[in-house]
Amino acid sequence: MLVPEIAKLGHVSLVTPDLQKSLWFFKEVLGLEEIERAGGAVYLRACGEFEHHSLVLKQGDRAVVDHIGWRAKRAEDVEKFAVQLEAAGTKIQWIEAGREAGQGKAIQFKLPSQHTFEIYYEVEKPKAPQGERSGLKNQTHKSWARGISPRRIDHVNLWTSHDPGSVHQWLSEQLGFKMREYVKLNNGKVIGGWMSVTQLVHDVAMMGAHDPETPARFHHIAYWLDNAQDVLRALDILRENGIQIDLGPAKHGISQAVCAYVRDPGSGHRVELFSNGYLIFDPDWEPVEWGQEEFGVALQWWGPEYTPGHGHAMDETTEA
Amino acid sequence: MLVPEIAKLGHVSLVTPDLQKSLWFFKEVLGLEEIERAGGAVYLRACGEFEHHSLVLKQGDRAVVDHIGWRAKRAEDVEKFAVQLEAAGTKIQWIEAGREAGQGKAIQFKLPSQHTFEIYYEVEKPKAPQGERSGLKNQTHKSWARGISPRRIDHVNLWTSHDPGSVHQWLSEQLGFKMREYVKLNNGKVIGGWMSVTQLVHDVAMMGAHDPETPARFHHIAYWLDNAQDVLRALDILRENGIQIDLGPAKHGISQAVCAYVRDPGSGHRVELFSNGYLIFDPDWEPVEWGQEEFGVALQWWGPEYTPGHGHAMDETTEA
Amino acid sequence: MLVPEIAKLGHVSLVTPDLQKSLWFFKEVLGLEEIERAGGAVYLRACGEFEHHSLVLKQGDRAVVDHIGWRAKRAEDVEKFAVQLEAAGTKIQWIEAGREAGQGKAIQFKLPSQHTFEIYYEVEKPKAPQGERSGLKNQTHKSWARGISPRRIDHVNLWTSHDPGSVHQWLSEQLGFKMREYVKLNNGKVIGGWMSVTQLVHDVAMMGAHDPETPARFHHIAYWLDNAQDVLRALDILRENGIQIDLGPAKHGISQAVCAYVRDPGSGHRVELFSNGYLIFDPDWEPVEWGQEEFGVALQWWGPEYTPGHGHAMDETTEA
Amino acid sequence: MLVPEIAKLGHVSLVTPDLQKSLWFFKEVLGLEEIERAGGAVYLRACGEFEHHSLVLKQGDRAVVDHIGWRAKRAEDVEKFAVQLEAAGTKIQWIEAGREAGQGKAIQFKLPSQHTFEIYYEVEKPKAPQGERSGLKNQTHKSWARGISPRRIDHVNLWTSHDPGSVHQWLSEQLGFKMREYVKLNNGKVIGGWMSVTQLVHDVAMMGAHDPETPARFHHIAYWLDNAQDVLRALDILRENGIQIDLGPAKHGISQAVCAYVRDPGSGHRVELFSNGYLIFDPDWEPVEWGQEEFGVALQWWGPEYTPGHGHAMDETTEA
Repeated sequence: MLVPEIAKLGHVSLVTPDLQKSLWFFKEVLGLEEIERAGGAVYLRACGEFEHHSLVLKQGDRAVVDHIGWRAKRAEDVEKFAVQLEAAGTKIQWIEAGREAGQGKAIQFKLPSQHTFEIYYEVEKPKAPQGERSGLKNQTHKSWARGISPRRIDHVNLWTSHDPGSVHQWLSEQLGFKMREYVKLNNGKVIGGWMSVTQLVHDVAMMGAHDPETPARFHHIAYWLDNAQDVLRALDILRENGIQIDLGPAKHGISQAVCAYVRDPGSGHRVELFSNGYLIFDPDWEPVEWGQEEFGVALQWWGPEYTPGHGHAMDETTEA
Repeated sequence: MLVPEIAKLGHVSLVTPDLQKSLWFFKEVLGLEEIERAGGAVYLRACGEFEHHSLVLKQGDRAVVDHIGWRAKRAEDVEKFAVQLEAAGTKIQWIEAGREAGQGKAIQFKLPSQHTFEIYYEVEKPKAPQGERSGLKNQTHKSWARGISPRRIDHVNLWTSHDPGSVHQWLSEQLGFKMREYVKLNNGKVIGGWMSVTQLVHDVAMMGAHDPETPARFHHIAYWLDNAQDVLRALDILRENGIQIDLGPAKHGISQAVCAYVRDPGSGHRVELFSNGYLIFDPDWEPVEWGQEEFGVALQWWGPEYTPGHGHAMDETTEA
Repeated sequence: MLVPEIAKLGHVSLVTPDLQKSLWFFKEVLGLEEIERAGGAVYLRACGEFEHHSLVLKQGDRAVVDHIGWRAKRAEDVEKFAVQLEAAGTKIQWIEAGREAGQGKAIQFKLPSQHTFEIYYEVEKPKAPQGERSGLKNQTHKSWARGISPRRIDHVNLWTSHDPGSVHQWLSEQLGFKMREYVKLNNGKVIGGWMSVTQLVHDVAMMGAHDPETPARFHHIAYWLDNAQDVLRALDILRENGIQIDLGPAKHGISQAVCAYVRDPGSGHRVELFSNGYLIFDPDWEPVEWGQEEFGVALQWWGPEYTPGHGHAMDETTEA
Repeated sequence: MLVPEIAKLGHVSLVTPDLQKSLWFFKEVLGLEEIERAGGAVYLRACGEFEHHSLVLKQGDRAVVDHIGWRAKRAEDVEKFAVQLEAAGTKIQWIEAGREAGQGKAIQFKLPSQHTFEIYYEVEKPKAPQGERSGLKNQTHKSWARGISPRRIDHVNLWTSHDPGSVHQWLSEQLGFKMREYVKLNNGKVIGGWMSVTQLVHDVAMMGAHDPETPARFHHIAYWLDNAQDVLRALDILRENGIQIDLGPAKHGISQAVCAYVRDPGSGHRVELFSNGYLIFDPDWEPVEWGQEEFGVALQWWGPEYTPGHGHAMDETTEA
């Protein structure tokens, strides 16, 4: 019997204390498309996405991540993951079909780091409304319709006050994430790992957090742009709209992405604009280890210096 | 037992009637790195590649494709593919380890279209020489060292005077390629298919050929650049070096790639400079069908018009 | 006494048979800002322009250029040009202040090619409305607010069935335009000249026309974009909006501009999206001569081939 | 009689304590072309420059600027400037023709800030050697031949412990520089001015220095690249070559340039890679004033924060 597999990062569900402002940011500034409003939640996706949503926004008391949704590779994998996770001692909560708009039944569970993951398979693929539909049959919405206009969701970056290495191991053993690059201190401790189930360098990064108040922290959701120049254009748009830029443009050593980080002014949740980078096709890819002395290059190949844990805007995270 | 799988396009082995000129083109103009010379062959790779080579050049009487090499997902898959292919009536030729530099044992066989494919797993991953090594641990050679400087091989485009649809079916059933996009005439005939084993839109395209002299034709090998602007810079470099540009810059509808096509002046084999485009993560991706009336958009979303079969430079192919 | 001088191309005034469609194109697709409507005319400018308008659109029976406006270097130069032109036998028509919104008094006159030029000095510099104003003090409107979003007007390209060489001479002697690059046939005839009063390679190009019906033809108005990548993005936007692309992307030999040509669907007047290129600071710049055999490179360094006069979409012009 | 005028920034002559390393940087990394060696000096220019040199490098005890050369608009302007400057009390030193390779006679003199300027008119325009010559007749050397490959010199940035405002006034009155943008503190003191004789926002910036040891300091020479993406590519090249990056990529508010700053490892003289920005054609351009509270935006529209005078790498200057 095939082991269950995750196909891709599906969506992130965020709670915001100011839904109107968050919607302005994600729709008008970032340029996502609203697909549906249901049950107090707004479902959004990028112009290159076929599935129903890659972002869910809900009004709430404070900024927090509701869950991070992963799409399974096969319909039967949801049930298989449930069985497998429960067997390993992870408590599963079933989410009935339709409770999240456009989605079939799902399971939710907590990582050892207390981040809430969701796994589902069934998802609607609504067409864009006539007039907003791309002239390209391999794309849903028109390119460049509004704001920054990214192509698709790329990854999530999570922080934990837990030992990150043990969470990496759990992600690998339970969910099949492969380690692609990681940072290891001289004391042997791995403080950050970039992992994927796809050929991206990472679908999820799990990093050591500086804030131990809540164990599960959310650093950012990333959206993909086709060109580094598109990230520079995004910065112009953000500045014209008075949005806080935390860092960038920069090129990471890890992943080789050209990027910039901004905060949704409605919630404080951070978004990374992400381009370039590389893909991993080699089946025997050896995880790239960056040592303590290489940490600077690992973080920024070029761009503004940033050392985590010294009060930089990039150190702030939201609750996950 | 797991079915054997192909992980990725590994390399293309080309015969050229003018090895010196081809080496000048691929090394000085395109900017590939020479890794080894052995047995009359020169092994080259791009700056972002870890495996031993993605291009092999050999002197010969005339321009022809020796074979197209695919890396298997697991070591045991080479043997498994051999068994499976032979069971299905395909003749297998074993290539002993080391006959191609840096490679372990391999099998070669012909597609119904008579194109020669090779499958192997073992491959060396030599470091770049000190002084040419990238400062990035996730890259081998320095970026932008010379010429166009692409990151990696992307795909091959093959033409056949055979019925392309039947070759697509064979590629799917025997090798596990998934159809991602295709063009279908009003008479129901599929005249081109873009297929992949990776999350790229295509690792191989198989198209209907206009030249029936040899059934197996080679249209191009593609190398990847990170930005559309890098394709424009490549065109400057090509023109300054007097290289024939067949078409571009253009943006395909199919794959959404920004691209340009040029010919190695030593052999006439064509190279595509390839950027942008989209990736496929959806496990239930429905192949995108382009009808006869949509063929123009499918070929070129923007850029020079080109209708195959009317004497355009793009209609010329080499023997495969 | 100082001779009168032209400082810059100020604006182009176009008549369109479908003002609504032209406004949709120039505002929503191209992304110009509407500054004022007065006397049946709509005044538009780009986000980086301080002066009142760079484009005027008026409803009319057919697509025609009303006039091309040039801003003088000094207030007194308008009167000086009037005197000088009349002395040389050119008929002058005075336009009273305010007849064109935002402008002071002006003179209009016809070139030997029958194109109507206007010279003025006084012009209002309205601020952008609060909320649409750029956060940059050296720019008026927000960048990237809508559509293609060029920075500024760049140049005009005019065609004449008259001898172009004699018009070049007139532009030089009467208005101070300097020849920067030109194309000369083997028979000694100059068939195109790129001329400027600024440090741009050209503020105006005057080319030999193939259509002798009206002597004065209009080929295009050009708007400037900061990056070649912005031209590629423009093409995406144009295609998503179903706008006819006549040619591009291409890089001219002459001027070294990366460009694309499109037609306003309301009028058929052509717009060039224009970036890159070079500036001329050398006070003793020798005009670059391109011979008949160099014409191909002069027109297109790379990009689609185009030979004028063979029925290409680029041969079509509007009345000027 | 016409007043004498400066046409353009011609060249910068730099003394370096390690000529070999500086040549490696400027030729191999930056990608300038060596035109001539004479009298212990090496003369270099960029691929888009026709005049003999835009950079002169000489071996010396310590890093210092020998002079900054400006090309006059007319041959007779050199003599006229000499007369006018001496009349105003500035001591003139005549440099005989040929003492700087490729140049005719020149005058040198010191600004009130003690920076040494040179004015000349005659200059050779050598062709590039066959084989290195561009296929474009309006360019000298092949594009992208080596390293970063900028198009042309852009401007110089000078610092003075003198009152910058008085130096601005002198530059305006004696040499005809126009103020384009400036920064004014709440106490009324102008601490930086961006001035030009061309349509660039600045050919020279004169800023208040923090280091009072020598009154004349040199902050950087800038070279122009056609696209913002080319600046990002430059950063990759710099990092691969181990060159110190002081700041960038960033987009200045003033001038709107996308840029990065690096130091020649042979001398410590700083080079700015410079693209985008805007041009000034308006004859009545009103200098843009940035107040003390707007200083942040004026310096960096986006990119790393930098406040002068707090020990940042950007505060370091060389002697001028």
